[in-house]
Amino acid sequence: MIKFLNNLYSFIFVKKLSDIGERKAIDLISKIVDSSDWAVGIGDDCAAYEIDDQYLLVSSDMISEKNHIPKVMTAWQIGWFIVAVNLSDIVSKGGRPIGFVLSLGIPGETKESFLKELFQGANDCSKKYDCPIVGGDTKENSEMTIFGTALGLVDKEKFMSRSGCKPGDIVAVTGSLGGAGAGFYAIENKIKKPDFWKCLLEPKPKMNEGKIFSDSGLVNCCMDISDGLSSSLYQLGNLNKVGFEIFKKEIPTSDSFKDLDNIKKSDLDYFVLHFGGDYELLLTVDSDNFDELKDLVEKNGGRLTGIGRVTKDKRVKIVDTDSKILENKGYEHFK
Amino acid sequence: MIKFLNNLYSFIFVKKLSDIGERKAIDLISKIVDSSDWAVGIGDDCAAYEIDDQYLLVSSDMISEKNHIPKVMTAWQIGWFIVAVNLSDIVSKGGRPIGFVLSLGIPGETKESFLKELFQGANDCSKKYDCPIVGGDTKENSEMTIFGTALGLVDKEKFMSRSGCKPGDIVAVTGSLGGAGAGFYAIENKIKKPDFWKCLLEPKPKMNEGKIFSDSGLVNCCMDISDGLSSSLYQLGNLNKVGFEIFKKEIPTSDSFKDLDNIKKSDLDYFVLHFGGDYELLLTVDSDNFDELKDLVEKNGGRLTGIGRVTKDKRVKIVDTDSKILENKGYEHFK
Repeated sequence: MIKFLNNLYSFIFVKKLSDIGERKAIDLISKIVDSSDWAVGIGDDCAAYEIDDQYLLVSSDMISEKNHIPKVMTAWQIGWFIVAVNLSDIVSKGGRPIGFVLSLGIPGETKESFLKELFQGANDCSKKYDCPIVGGDTKENSEMTIFGTALGLVDKEKFMSRSGCKPGDIVAVTGSLGGAGAGFYAIENKIKKPDFWKCLLEPKPKMNEGKIFSDSGLVNCCMDISDGLSSSLYQLGNLNKVGFEIFKKEIPTSDSFKDLDNIKKSDLDYFVLHFGGDYELLLTVDSDNFDELKDLVEKNGGRLTGIGRVTKDKRVKIVDTDSKILENKGYEHFK
Repeated sequence: MIKFLNNLYSFIFVKKLSDIGERKAIDLISKIVDSSDWAVGIGDDCAAYEIDDQYLLVSSDMISEKNHIPKVMTAWQIGWFIVAVNLSDIVSKGGRPIGFVLSLGIPGETKESFLKELFQGANDCSKKYDCPIVGGDTKENSEMTIFGTALGLVDKEKFMSRSGCKPGDIVAVTGSLGGAGAGFYAIENKIKKPDFWKCLLEPKPKMNEGKIFSDSGLVNCCMDISDGLSSSLYQLGNLNKVGFEIFKKEIPTSDSFKDLDNIKKSDLDYFVLHFGGDYELLLTVDSDNFDELKDLVEKNGGRLTGIGRVTKDKRVKIVDTDSKILENKGYEHFK
């Protein structure tokens, strides 16, 4: 009887991770662990530890076969991807990468050539961004699972935080948004445009822009857009107790969409505003300093676009023809 | 026809990871990646990067449900284990831990309480050894897979390397060997002695001994025994182009075996010499310095036992009643 009641209790009340979602799982973890020795601890995609006049930066990300790896993705691209997305977090803090740890859980049936290509991709990305692969672990697993940890250093006075934006700041993004979404759309709809696919499968960390921002000292807060613009804005808003007014027509949109004839406007909006995967940098800057920062980026061949303002009102509003409140539709795991 | 020939070729010649084994997979990876910027790069369980007059130490290890987690292991123990085994690598270099990154691939059906207990175990270990959990990633995966990366710092002059042993050195181990094997034996044979199980499931990194060794400046080379004494000796031998003569009767054996009445001598030998999992430290020291080092360890409540000598002859010989050459039977994945 007691067992029956226990089972009934479990059936009704025991929460599973698929019920609570990834962010609540992370909240739960944050309540257990104590990282107060660190300048930036758990809860940020990139932690920071003081070593003399520098911060050691640490970011970690994982991908697994069933949830994150489209069938068209090559082994080389998987290797490139895991390095690139982790470096993006280092770059968003103004850091220079110093090393990368790459670990693999991989089925025993995997071909040796697959492993070689994957590490070749990882190594090509790590060489391009001057971040050697220095360690890791390789063990058997029933599902291919790839974990990366990137390490970086930044002088304390050049460190860019997620905190620090304030009402009146201009909100800006590097590059353009939606390219990764266009790649996803092309893959899903079997449109053979491998260049589009690459936007999704071979992201480029914004190393030059990150360095310009951090050297300039003009940036009030910064993060990379990994899970979509809306999700990133909500994270910055919650952290800084502010809101945002974003002008939709100002958002720089990927050129890829011009070649996708039949895409619905709602899909396009979704890919630009919510889908993520572009790994552009999102930042805020005093309105007086915006033009100077934009010039610095453009002189170095980059692109910086103001898309709105930080507001006291804590909502994230997107202004189209009428003023709408943007939903947080960024990707969340488990759910 | 071409496809048929390709398939035939694949069938005959394409190597899978289960054919080549973990060490060859790591050799293959080492040939692709270039970590020459680092003082210690890929190929060692713990990499080292120069920051001013210190080294940043980085070690990484993973475990997965099917291959590494016995059914009797609790969520708390899984959390403890992943932190402890990574700290062991930091300690073996003389490092003080500074932070830990813990990432989980976990089925959506996992209970929230399991995740809590796992992080509680990880946090208890990280608190005990003063190494806060500062980041990580949690995503859905079909098999529970846990990745840890430990970070540490060590003053350059206190850094202990795996290189540096030379013929004539005394080979020594901390603590005793075989306790983890006895735990494994007890679990496999359904012997309900949870204290034995703990030797396997709750390893203790040898933090005090590592600090004493590194402060003393007397140690010529050091590593932790994670995969078994024989495997560790072969690794040190290959790296330093030396061999070892080990006196079997000198090896300190776990007290656990006294209570395992029916264990066969061959099983006992296997657990002490080859099984691993004890995370004791293995080191070599000039014979003139051994007594001083032993005293230092004993004054701090530890144990250090000379078990043999480094030889010019590159074989690893274990001397029992007759002189036998020890096989490398350390655990290897994929095979």
